[in-house]
Amino acid sequence: MNERLSRQLAFIREVDKLKTIFRQTYLLDASRRENDAEHSWHITLMACLLEEHLDGKKIDLPRVIKMLLIHDVVEIDAGDTFAYDVQGHEDKFEREQQAARRIFGLLPPDQSADMMELWLEFERRETAEARYAAAMDRIQPLLHNYYTEGKAWREHQVTSDRVLERIRFLKQELPDLHALVTGLIRDAVDKGYLLP
Amino acid sequence: MNERLSRQLAFIREVDKLKTIFRQTYLLDASRRENDAEHSWHITLMACLLEEHLDGKKIDLPRVIKMLLIHDVVEIDAGDTFAYDVQGHEDKFEREQQAARRIFGLLPPDQSADMMELWLEFERRETAEARYAAAMDRIQPLLHNYYTEGKAWREHQVTSDRVLERIRFLKQELPDLHALVTGLIRDAVDKGYLLP
Repeated sequence: MNERLSRQLAFIREVDKLKTIFRQTYLLDASRRENDAEHSWHITLMACLLEEHLDGKKIDLPRVIKMLLIHDVVEIDAGDTFAYDVQGHEDKFEREQQAARRIFGLLPPDQSADMMELWLEFERRETAEARYAAAMDRIQPLLHNYYTEGKAWREHQVTSDRVLERIRFLKQELPDLHALVTGLIRDAVDKGYLLP
Repeated sequence: MNERLSRQLAFIREVDKLKTIFRQTYLLDASRRENDAEHSWHITLMACLLEEHLDGKKIDLPRVIKMLLIHDVVEIDAGDTFAYDVQGHEDKFEREQQAARRIFGLLPPDQSADMMELWLEFERRETAEARYAAAMDRIQPLLHNYYTEGKAWREHQVTSDRVLERIRFLKQELPDLHALVTGLIRDAVDKGYLLP
């Protein structure tokens, strides 16, 4: 087997572990928590469907897709840090960067560098692509929380101001989706799924 | 909420069920069977990494990606049909087509038509994109079988001629990958993971 294929295969085998990294969010049927691999699939598909809500703004969708497919791979080593865990976030970036180096480093050097760049772009949220990708990554768990009657929110006593803060960046570029989720947040408070 | 977004949301919620459709193939750590959502994520990522093995042949990768993200959605209604289940394959296409109409039909009409077209293209395997997508869909479970010492193969008493038959179409367009998997199949027979 040639060296490149051998490295690609090592990476493909390694990332299978993402299927065993569980998040705080539940499936919509509330039967169990979801894992990072299925979450990544779900938000990648969402990204393919919701582009029109960028109101005509052009983005590089294939780049968004690649970002979303690999954005959580670092959690194989670093674990899932719950969005509202303040302590866990202190050294999150450092832990994840180390993980990125190890895991993407399994690939041939050019692909490893591409993946590292995509992951950093996602983390920095400075490009339109990274912000659109981040929007998918924020909206999906919010939907899951809302439609499971706030299961993970209630378990962690999350308050609405913190949820609103996390989706505030949607307002300018994705006004439809911002309106959708703020409506759900308000309704979740009314129904007791989420603390005010 | 506008009508289009409302339909998109209905589809996004519906496809969450793909996370509860389990396949015959095991995770690489053999701890459990994998589900269609995580499988779809895995092969979409593989498609992004292995394009170079098409030996310079140009394909529309974003189209492949979309195909792979939605190729198993029909199994929400139709269930997973094991690759080597002859009886299950008799009415497979009919069951799946009905499922495609219902599930993709949740989307706004233009997106529904696009998804239906992508799914049919994948099923027909006539374009270079559909064949490359199908290659990922065949290679991944084969890797999982090989690296779990033939766990699902042994459970279903699968023979090597049937596995070879399913990956034969790789030979012309993806010779490296064909060589890789035929090598694994031979080795699997030698090691007793797979019946001759």
